[in-house]
Amino acid sequence: MRGRVLSVQSHVVYGYVGNKAATFPLQLLAYDVDAINTVNYTNHAAYPITGGTKSSAAEINQLIAMLRQNELLKPHRLITGYTPTADPLSAIKDLATALKADIPDLIYLLDPVMGDSGSLYVSEDLVPVYRSMLPLATIITPNRFELEILSQIKITDLPSLRHALNVVHTQYNVPNIVLTSILLDSWLLPHLPPTLRPEELSPSTTSDPSHILCLTSQRNPSTDPNNSPISTIYARTVPLIPGYFSGVGDLFSALLLGYYQPSSPTPLQSAATHALSVTHAVLAFTYTRTLSLPKDEQYPTDDESDAKEPLRKARRARGRELALIQAQDLLRHGIAHPSVPEYPLELWSDFWSAA
Amino acid sequence: MRGRVLSVQSHVVYGYVGNKAATFPLQLLAYDVDAINTVNYTNHAAYPITGGTKSSAAEINQLIAMLRQNELLKPHRLITGYTPTADPLSAIKDLATALKADIPDLIYLLDPVMGDSGSLYVSEDLVPVYRSMLPLATIITPNRFELEILSQIKITDLPSLRHALNVVHTQYNVPNIVLTSILLDSWLLPHLPPTLRPEELSPSTTSDPSHILCLTSQRNPSTDPNNSPISTIYARTVPLIPGYFSGVGDLFSALLLGYYQPSSPTPLQSAATHALSVTHAVLAFTYTRTLSLPKDEQYPTDDESDAKEPLRKARRARGRELALIQAQDLLRHGIAHPSVPEYPLELWSDFWSAA
Repeated sequence: MRGRVLSVQSHVVYGYVGNKAATFPLQLLAYDVDAINTVNYTNHAAYPITGGTKSSAAEINQLIAMLRQNELLKPHRLITGYTPTADPLSAIKDLATALKADIPDLIYLLDPVMGDSGSLYVSEDLVPVYRSMLPLATIITPNRFELEILSQIKITDLPSLRHALNVVHTQYNVPNIVLTSILLDSWLLPHLPPTLRPEELSPSTTSDPSHILCLTSQRNPSTDPNNSPISTIYARTVPLIPGYFSGVGDLFSALLLGYYQPSSPTPLQSAATHALSVTHAVLAFTYTRTLSLPKDEQYPTDDESDAKEPLRKARRARGRELALIQAQDLLRHGIAHPSVPEYPLELWSDFWSAA
Repeated sequence: MRGRVLSVQSHVVYGYVGNKAATFPLQLLAYDVDAINTVNYTNHAAYPITGGTKSSAAEINQLIAMLRQNELLKPHRLITGYTPTADPLSAIKDLATALKADIPDLIYLLDPVMGDSGSLYVSEDLVPVYRSMLPLATIITPNRFELEILSQIKITDLPSLRHALNVVHTQYNVPNIVLTSILLDSWLLPHLPPTLRPEELSPSTTSDPSHILCLTSQRNPSTDPNNSPISTIYARTVPLIPGYFSGVGDLFSALLLGYYQPSSPTPLQSAATHALSVTHAVLAFTYTRTLSLPKDEQYPTDDESDAKEPLRKARRARGRELALIQAQDLLRHGIAHPSVPEYPLELWSDFWSAA
């Protein structure tokens, strides 16, 4: 038996983000999934209209209190994701705090969902709450922008990336950080060790829009900070699949939690390898599937046409819903499935020391 | 591709009833499942405490309106279940009415969840709303008590069972009725044809507490009501599994909808055979699993001890949660799985005419 995951994320009627993206994959991995819905929405934000109700802090607290009275609040793992406002997030913080106290070996994956590409899509007062939650987490999965916000360090080069990771590891005491999709810009690509560069690139190439980097940072035991680096870094590039797909990060985080085995010699690297490989295979499957759809459901954003005909946007978003159901064999069998190419994360041994 | 099911039922954080019992099995059968939650509760009612929020008619109508604006309201199949009050149920009726008009070949399974064993557990004003919804349904799955309420006929013998089915088929225009678990009492067992009696019973036995009967009634084309019977009846007994398990009816209804193929020569009999066999196998698996649990999670109700220690009830209910996740291979492979004994429903040819 794999055990029980408590997942606190969004519910959407249609499509696959939040709890709809996390539950089925975790169930296929044989976890029982208890789902607290932070919102009850129609669909994700890539459609023209999104709406529904948000769960209040009082509603979440009431659910938690009653579950506790029934002795039903005993998960082995906890995952928290999208929450639109600060008060419910504070309720979730209280939940995580209480669970950590009750269940010493709880594994908590905190996905600090706040924004992307330089802009927030949640209320600004969530930021300090997320910062205060960091010491509770076993693993966090920020994107680059979210790592910048949490660490208050703008990432523009390798030293500032190191600085941001260092702050989160040491100041906020987070043992494991996973950055899922960093673009291979000119501040990063030339610094990658040869083993981590995409094979087909010439050594003189300084940026590469066709791949993204997944990077994991596992804090080292702080015996002698002068001798050992702060953390051990593994990383891997994967081909970028064109177009915007919603829920990819939610799927990745759920799989990362599902595959995480504390007894593994390299638990974070191993879980990230599985999660990255399977997420990439599901996305590739979904992308291939969209190519068989009507033309206006498959093309990338075309804002001018969208403005003229909002339903183009709806059809495109619908065509891009993750094909979790149709790709369930990939989720179930993981890297043992012949259609799931393995992308093992490789050691980046001089991450902390290279010039 | 199997298509898309819209499922309007309860959500519970913990355990498997309503949408939590229906979604995963339908996803394993390769359906995309859109889930509208009629309530957001902690758990089902077999626990000492149950609570959370109910979705209002306005909230449900808002979700529906926005889904429609995004062109996301195009399911191939619809299933509706537990709804606690009349106003939201009226909203669901409007939804079913609109979908029937938009989608001529929509398959609608209506589970008129109202009560069991002689008592209602929903508001009484739901009853007329459910009656008014019957003409919209492709299949309904009442228990004996719910069939009595819908037809306003007390079922005490074979003629009154015929009368109740007749009313629902002809007065309410329902093509398919499935009664999932009728006790083999003395009004029924002696009238079963020999092919339908449990094999091990002696011919003189007049009641049998160790089996239950599943009965399907598919309305015949009304060419000449004097010549052909009102409906074709198939039925099957299965061994009764001791103890009360929540969500069994919800699982059965979801599987019945999932397996229903209008192009089959006997669509209702075939779907019911699959649904009955798989539900019974999952229940048998769950029951066997409960036997490995601590003693106070496995025993049947003991009201005196429960009153002294309410958490006994919680532990017993927890031990009895359907093992959908652990039994996922049974759900996935159905009667092709070696641990799913097939219970084919057999024709009851003289149901309408036998004395």
